[in-house]
Amino acid sequence: MTIQEMGKRAKDAARVLAAVSSGQKDRALLAIAAALRAKEADILQANAEDVQAGRQNGLTDALIDRLTLTPARIEGIATGMEQVAGLPDPVGKLDAGWTRPNGLRIFKTRVPLGVVGIIFESRPNVTVDAASLCLKAGNACILRGGKEAIRSNLAFARVMRGALKESGLPEDAIQVVEDTTRDSAAALMRLNGYLDVLIPRGGAGLIQSVVQNATVPVIETGVGNCHVFVDESANTEMAAQIIFNAKAQRPSVCNAAETLLVHKNIAVAFLPRAKALLDTKQVELRGDETVRAILGGDVQPAVEDDWATEFLDYILAVKVVDSLDEAIAHIARYGSGHSECIVTENYTNSEHFLREVDAAAVYVNASTRFTDGGEFGFGAEIGISTQKLHARGPMGLAELTTVKYQIYGSGQIR
Amino acid sequence: MTIQEMGKRAKDAARVLAAVSSGQKDRALLAIAAALRAKEADILQANAEDVQAGRQNGLTDALIDRLTLTPARIEGIATGMEQVAGLPDPVGKLDAGWTRPNGLRIFKTRVPLGVVGIIFESRPNVTVDAASLCLKAGNACILRGGKEAIRSNLAFARVMRGALKESGLPEDAIQVVEDTTRDSAAALMRLNGYLDVLIPRGGAGLIQSVVQNATVPVIETGVGNCHVFVDESANTEMAAQIIFNAKAQRPSVCNAAETLLVHKNIAVAFLPRAKALLDTKQVELRGDETVRAILGGDVQPAVEDDWATEFLDYILAVKVVDSLDEAIAHIARYGSGHSECIVTENYTNSEHFLREVDAAAVYVNASTRFTDGGEFGFGAEIGISTQKLHARGPMGLAELTTVKYQIYGSGQIR
Repeated sequence: MTIQEMGKRAKDAARVLAAVSSGQKDRALLAIAAALRAKEADILQANAEDVQAGRQNGLTDALIDRLTLTPARIEGIATGMEQVAGLPDPVGKLDAGWTRPNGLRIFKTRVPLGVVGIIFESRPNVTVDAASLCLKAGNACILRGGKEAIRSNLAFARVMRGALKESGLPEDAIQVVEDTTRDSAAALMRLNGYLDVLIPRGGAGLIQSVVQNATVPVIETGVGNCHVFVDESANTEMAAQIIFNAKAQRPSVCNAAETLLVHKNIAVAFLPRAKALLDTKQVELRGDETVRAILGGDVQPAVEDDWATEFLDYILAVKVVDSLDEAIAHIARYGSGHSECIVTENYTNSEHFLREVDAAAVYVNASTRFTDGGEFGFGAEIGISTQKLHARGPMGLAELTTVKYQIYGSGQIR
Repeated sequence: MTIQEMGKRAKDAARVLAAVSSGQKDRALLAIAAALRAKEADILQANAEDVQAGRQNGLTDALIDRLTLTPARIEGIATGMEQVAGLPDPVGKLDAGWTRPNGLRIFKTRVPLGVVGIIFESRPNVTVDAASLCLKAGNACILRGGKEAIRSNLAFARVMRGALKESGLPEDAIQVVEDTTRDSAAALMRLNGYLDVLIPRGGAGLIQSVVQNATVPVIETGVGNCHVFVDESANTEMAAQIIFNAKAQRPSVCNAAETLLVHKNIAVAFLPRAKALLDTKQVELRGDETVRAILGGDVQPAVEDDWATEFLDYILAVKVVDSLDEAIAHIARYGSGHSECIVTENYTNSEHFLREVDAAAVYVNASTRFTDGGEFGFGAEIGISTQKLHARGPMGLAELTTVKYQIYGSGQIR
């Protein structure tokens, strides 16, 4: 089927979904969860073929691990879907309502976006997670995953579409693109008239390709060059725990810290303590001259590129700055607008940092790792927006909706 | 100066503006209004040169009228700026705030978008209107108007930038692009890293060019193929007044109606009354066969294209439909998602229409002409969004802001 044809079907399905009750959507989500469990063997079989093909094609162990499904992972996916069913419906919420002097009553009501496209890479669980959030928010979705997981993704799609149909909802509310060549991605990026938004989920290369080539509205996600700034008044033990957590608890994710900035007046007291903790996970430090003078020779010299790099690894760039303002200027220059943290005991500096730093999430005395839909209490997350339009930071169900003005008149004319 | 260099300057100015108080922004707006009055002669001189050049280049009288400034128009522009100063500041508003079980306090706060680009056509007042709204919302703006008004636009920019400087704000908060070739528009569309949003204001050609070519986030504005549906239970006199107003009060704007849909059971009673009113403004009707059978030979036959056309003129396509659902299906097929109206006395049908029709503004018993920031009570309008991301319908000051999560911790780690 062509992407254009999938777009038409999605649009038709979206019209139906927009008028469906919360109860009906939730029953469908529960039916899908039950079907995932019932069809576990089929899904694992398809996944095994993906994994075998992946090994033949020389995927790394890490990629094979991300690709592999197990009964426990499928149970986790089904449980996640049941949790989404339990969340409040974002559709129908009144954002505002007022009466004009001429008597017009204006209601600004949350409605589904319509058709959501998602382009993602190898993890097949994204297929189900994204579909469940789109369905809950009343949207049809077109999911285009990577070729490594295509058999798993199509198996998930068969199960979900079957359960939709049995629940009385249009099966085209969830579609997986079979064609995993660049052509299908390119067609999705230009599916104007059918796609209300396209969300890329994956590495910087994928995201930039979508931003550069899409003519449909896009939400840019994910790239996080995040900083922790240790102010001169910081509690050094707290600061060490925060940078250790922000860097090393899970370095492969976008809310992990990539650069540590340290005020010159606390560098001697703080850096050795931080290094001792980071050494327990073999974090490679790349420091400027001052850092190397304090910490000694086994710290690599940082080069210009290090300040701009999202390592996504056990590597941390470290710089000593003369002032809070120098730290803020460094973040403005190199940051990606994702998550930024100051560790400080100084009230005025904390407020200054919160106000001046331009990022989706700005923290005082907490790890950048909290920038996450679950940690924010949204119950789910479709991605983390690093742009400023529509959504910024973790996107939950509300961000998968838009508004419609419903206006009640009694014959008003201008 | 290159567009890239303008982007850098705008970004620097935006950083300053983001931290400026409401009072300081409002004083700058009042200073600009005063400067516009004081420098009226300079502005009129520059505008006279534009008008002269326009006549030499054969601009139509309508375009010359849109281009021409007068003392009264400048006074109106200055007064508009004072009104913007009097509106509430959208920046700093708390959209939400909550405490997580781990003690993190999360505040979702409205902040400026940053740098706003606007590409527009011949009317020079847009320069000042857009600049005032951007400034009020704490944004720097880069304004790229048409070549017909370039002298006027640059004169406005000189006055505004001078007043900004005297008010202690960065003059690069307002920049007008001198180069009016396609090159500058193309460069603006690809100014990633500097431009947070680009808003095209103008005809369908301009908007499509921006949607097709921009890599920066865009808000699509303006195209309105709006419908009025007269249900079988409608009050025929109310319905006639509404379609007359929606079509003929100001046909050149996007919220004017382009197609009239009439339920078959009221067509004979309603259509002659509507035609009598529309005839008073010489509105050309293009009807289907049933319409022509009822209204007689001076109604032109409608062709397929008429249902899809935004006439922006004294032309109205008219169709008789068998049911409410046929009307809704027609709107789903041909509408542009702008403004749609049902005239009815039937409660269930009114609710059905409000729910099922997918448009920025859906009306019961009121003219589509109310889709407007002023009429909605926003006090100002930067455009009308016909997309679903970020903003939908009339965009006021709130739509020129985004959010930032400010998170207060006490050492939390994951």
